[in-house]
Amino acid sequence: MLQLYFSPMACSLSSRIALMEAGLDASYHQVHLWTKKIVDDDGDFRGISPKGAVPVLVLDNGERLTESAAVLQYIADLNPKSGLAPRPGDVDRYRLQEWLSFIGSEIHKAFLFPTFWYKDDGSLAKPRARIAQTLSVPAEHLAEREFLVGNSFTVADAHLTWALLLLRPAGIDIARWPSLSAYLERMQTRPAVRSAIATEMALRKAMAA
Amino acid sequence: MLQLYFSPMACSLSSRIALMEAGLDASYHQVHLWTKKIVDDDGDFRGISPKGAVPVLVLDNGERLTESAAVLQYIADLNPKSGLAPRPGDVDRYRLQEWLSFIGSEIHKAFLFPTFWYKDDGSLAKPRARIAQTLSVPAEHLAEREFLVGNSFTVADAHLTWALLLLRPAGIDIARWPSLSAYLERMQTRPAVRSAIATEMALRKAMAA
Ligand SMILES: N[C@@H](CCC(=O)N[C@@H](CS)C(=O)NCC(=O)O)C(=O)O
Ligand SMILES: N[C@@H](CCC(=O)N[C@@H](CS)C(=O)NCC(=O)O)C(=O)O
Repeated sequence: MLQLYFSPMACSLSSRIALMEAGLDASYHQVHLWTKKIVDDDGDFRGISPKGAVPVLVLDNGERLTESAAVLQYIADLNPKSGLAPRPGDVDRYRLQEWLSFIGSEIHKAFLFPTFWYKDDGSLAKPRARIAQTLSVPAEHLAEREFLVGNSFTVADAHLTWALLLLRPAGIDIARWPSLSAYLERMQTRPAVRSAIATEMALRKAMAA
Repeated sequence: MLQLYFSPMACSLSSRIALMEAGLDASYHQVHLWTKKIVDDDGDFRGISPKGAVPVLVLDNGERLTESAAVLQYIADLNPKSGLAPRPGDVDRYRLQEWLSFIGSEIHKAFLFPTFWYKDDGSLAKPRARIAQTLSVPAEHLAEREFLVGNSFTVADAHLTWALLLLRPAGIDIARWPSLSAYLERMQTRPAVRSAIATEMALRKAMAA
């Protein structure tokens, strides 16, 4: 069975959403990202992945795959009927890769990551000054579309849904971009998305308690 | 004909390397990244891509593709015989995506980008504190391998070659990781890599002059 190493509401949420949308069974192992401990057994997460970052997907053959863009495409391709990624060869497959890269680099690594990991004002001034321009890209794209790629839900939507959810605790009110807030609401009407978020929000609250 | 919007020695260098390794003709349009002007005709680069960032690849049908991870895979797949990417369906294709994501997020967006764009010490302290751990990931991987993925040159190598070249002006001496400096030398013995770098270094010097 597939195994996903995750931390509640971290970027691994999009991999959980993808697994649930694809109807794939997996076991989920929670990681404490600051201490790098696996919650199940107090094991060393760096033994699973030297990067010390989630998501890590353990494949059926025991190999470990990291990086959301790769993990999400892997999951999508395990169940092509789910339509979670355009088939390889379809030009929309490159559009999917374009969005995964944009979300992973420009929204996540350039903004959300420093906000939650670096925290101090010196680290955050420049990223904050850029984020509105960054968000205008998906906002304009989604003004006339229901999904990021093609006419149905893909793993790019799973990833953007996660990123948009995190913008609020990062101090960005997405109400400023009506197409983004409408999109986020729309995505959250999907049973798999809603259920993945509810599971991780509950775990997150348990951590805070 | 394909068209690549680039800036000398920016991350678009890896797309130029890929085009040359694939033996594909393209026209190259230089962009001034600070003014967002196209050098050819003083045109507005934001009219080509609202992101205002290179690379932008204009496809034969006129569509514009952005984000290195997507552009590089697109180029590789245009000439499958070049072996620049494992075929879709091959598990190594996900390894390629994993490296493209790691280079684009952890090395480029988390470190090189703030170094060259933000510049001030406040923005750079945290990224600098993390970069050695980040670089240890490819350094360990390449200690026993010639290429990032499989046994031949792929677009992931094109992208890492660019990133390693930029580390020096970013103040990081990669001699600290012998496997990385040996790799960079090895990659630069490839005619296409060498020629792409020489072209852009010459343009870069002309800009500075
Ligand atoms: N480029 C990676 C980023 C992974 C990442 O930054 N994960 C965060 C949580 S959202 C993490 O585990 N951070 C712990 C650390 O960096 O030490 C991806 O796209 O998957
Ligand atoms: N996520 C993009 C990043 C592109 C990027 O940051 N390009 C830089 C040059 S290396 C740029 O054009 N910067 C101009 C700007 O951001 O205004 C990719 O991987 O292609």
